[in-house]
Order: sequence, then C-alpha cells, then structure tokens
Amino acid sequence: MPHLTSDAPSPRTRVNRYRWLAHYDRDTIYAILDAMPVAHVAYVHAGNPIVTPTLQWREGDRIYWHGAAHGRMMQATDGAEVCLTVSILDGLVLARAAYNFNINHRSVMVFGKPEPVLDATEKTRLLKRFVDGYVPGQWEKLRPVTEQEIAATAILSLPLTEASAKLRAGPPEDNEDDYGFPAWAGVLPIRLTVGTPEPDPRNLPGVSEPASLAAFTIG
Amino acid sequence: MPHLTSDAPSPRTRVNRYRWLAHYDRDTIYAILDAMPVAHVAYVHAGNPIVTPTLQWREGDRIYWHGAAHGRMMQATDGAEVCLTVSILDGLVLARAAYNFNINHRSVMVFGKPEPVLDATEKTRLLKRFVDGYVPGQWEKLRPVTEQEIAATAILSLPLTEASAKLRAGPPEDNEDDYGFPAWAGVLPIRLTVGTPEPDPRNLPGVSEPASLAAFTIG
Repeated sequence: MPHLTSDAPSPRTRVNRYRWLAHYDRDTIYAILDAMPVAHVAYVHAGNPIVTPTLQWREGDRIYWHGAAHGRMMQATDGAEVCLTVSILDGLVLARAAYNFNINHRSVMVFGKPEPVLDATEKTRLLKRFVDGYVPGQWEKLRPVTEQEIAATAILSLPLTEASAKLRAGPPEDNEDDYGFPAWAGVLPIRLTVGTPEPDPRNLPGVSEPASLAAFTIG
Repeated sequence: MPHLTSDAPSPRTRVNRYRWLAHYDRDTIYAILDAMPVAHVAYVHAGNPIVTPTLQWREGDRIYWHGAAHGRMMQATDGAEVCLTVSILDGLVLARAAYNFNINHRSVMVFGKPEPVLDATEKTRLLKRFVDGYVPGQWEKLRPVTEQEIAATAILSLPLTEASAKLRAGPPEDNEDDYGFPAWAGVLPIRLTVGTPEPDPRNLPGVSEPASLAAFTIG
C-alpha cells in the first residue's frame, strides 16, 4: 500500500507497526487535526505518565491548546516533552478471523516541547481564533474578554515538525486462505454527528441562534 | 454540585481543577468505560511521554487491552506506570463569555502498572470476550483462532483501583453578571452514530450479516 513521505519521519514519529498505514505529509496531518478538536496530551509528572483530554486548534504549521494557567496540565507541559495525539474512530472492521479484527481510524501524533504564548494581545487573537473556529463570527457577539481572563488562561503551542499520521480505511484484510471461510465480514461505520442546538433556558428574549452554528461539523 | 465519593480518590486521581465535576464511584466509571472502547494509553519510553490510542474492554473491576506482542506499546507498558484515559465528547457549550466556553464530556482516568495475561487459555477467553463485546456470538462464527495468533497477541490489564471520572453535562454556566448580556448561549450536542454495515465485497454467497450487529451502540 503506497504512502506519501514528503516530510521524513523522525525516529520517534516513524511508525513501526503497520507502517503501511503511516503518512508524514502535511496535508494528511492538517486534515485530521482540523477534523477533530479533541486531543489527548501526554506528559510526565513526578516521573509518571499522565494523559489529559483537551481541545486543540491549528494555525498554519502549529497547534495550540489552552487551559487554566494554574492547572497541573498547563504547568507540567510548559517546556517539557509532550506527546499529543488526535484520533478519530471511523468504524469497526469485522474480519473472518478474530486476529484481523480492526478499526478504521485516523490519528495524528505530535512530539515536542510546548512553548507558551505570553503576549496578551497574541493570546487574545488566538482565543478569538479558537472560538471562531467553532462558530465563525461568535467572538464579536460575546461579552468582551477581560484582562484577568486572559491572564488566567495559559496557551501552549507546538510546531508540527515532529508529527505523523496513521490511517486505516476500507474493508477487512484477511489472510488469503481465510477468504474461503463462510463468516460475514465487513465494516460497521461510526461517525460523529451534531444534533439540534439546545438553547440555554436563560437566554434573553430576542437573542438569535448564530447562523453559522448550522455549518458546524466534526470528525 | 454534589458528587458521589463511595470510593476515595488517591492523590493522583483526585481531580484538582473543576473538582465539582469529579466522580469516584464504580457505577459512573464502569458506565463510561463500557460506552467507549477507544482508550488513550500514556507511558514513558526512553524518558519521553507517548500516548497511543487502543481499544479497551472491561470485565468486573479490571480493564484489558491487547496489541502486537512485539509492539512498542505493549512492551513498554508491561509492568511500567501508565495512565489510561477514555473520553467521550457530548457537546459544545457556548456561553455568553469566551472564558466560559466549554465542552460537555465524560471521561475516565486510570493509573497503575499493567499486568500481562500469560496463560493461553485465559488469553483466548479474554479475546472471545473482546470480540463478542462488539458483536455477541461472533467469536464462534469466525475461523478458529490459532496458537500462533494467541502467542503473537499480548494482553495487559489494570485493576480499577486508582480511577476517577469527570463529567460535564447541561447548559452553559456563565458568571451571574453575564446572564444579562444579549448573546445566544446553549449546547450543540455531539454524539457517535453507527451507520449501515458495509459487507466485504469478498463475502461468500449466502453468508448473512450477524443479527446482533444492529444492536451495536457506542458513546
């Protein structure tokens, strides 16, 4: 199975198992990051691994995430090695042999030492980008952000220099001998869907749902 | 906001930020693990954190996952400290202030040193449980597993002794002063949905789709 290698993998990002599923090109990595804001950030805290879900967003060749400035995750990951993984489940792959049971999925793994964004103007710009990334135009409609809120929010970023993607799609792959075995095989597709917006019961009379909400997709 | 504490948190599992979202009781933890097979396992490899998506399943008060016996993840996590996180995204929470933007979610974090399952009979029983957990009755319909396949599959397990759950549901929570601000607030629900099964084009004539496939749910 061919794969693109426009950017060379590092020893850490080189995919060793199932290497035919690996991709290192920017377009593939960008598409997965842009489809799924939920990331799992792993770091070492007091010698032990911790992995925390958070929301990431991408701007050019960098990803960003934010959190409480005094929180464990933001403090422990600032300048320390992390591994950030984004994964999307696309389906169950039922093969003729249990050994070939699989999932269809897309994932990205990024390594590096996050750098903090310290400038308040740049933090504000990035948080606008974060909010408007979900609902374009929303930032300007909100109660304006305060200096204290910006100060209480830490933003970290990683360049996508050490990143890899892994994708599996399509039907099961059984051992050639097993295709004669009379078991049903196939894919059960799984996807994220967005439901109808649920307005806050405390919304003021006359406020209207953002039109751009209808365009939101994920996965 | 009250929360259940039938089991006491350890210093690692005690939730420090947003502690009112924390739960430590088994029923809550079990329900999240049973709803979402995708887990992210973090471990330390050559001093650096790595987080790998994998599929977990639960039996009683233990969780299990499997992988290639010679793979990096299974070798590096056998007996070493790991943090396993399962997370489910339930919605975007759009508040009147960017600072209160949030997500509705359910997550579980488990700490510990995984133990390998070494006995081939027990491994076989667990892999049957794994497959039948997705499609009840499927294992018996498959090409029988071989000794070599069992040997090539490593299974690790963790007791749920050091585990915590975090849940957020419901409408936005704005600062009391902000409820008078005329911005739309509310929740955009997100859920995983299962599509129509896609039969493998190489299925033999006459093999029928497992009836239990229709009952599969996730999230």
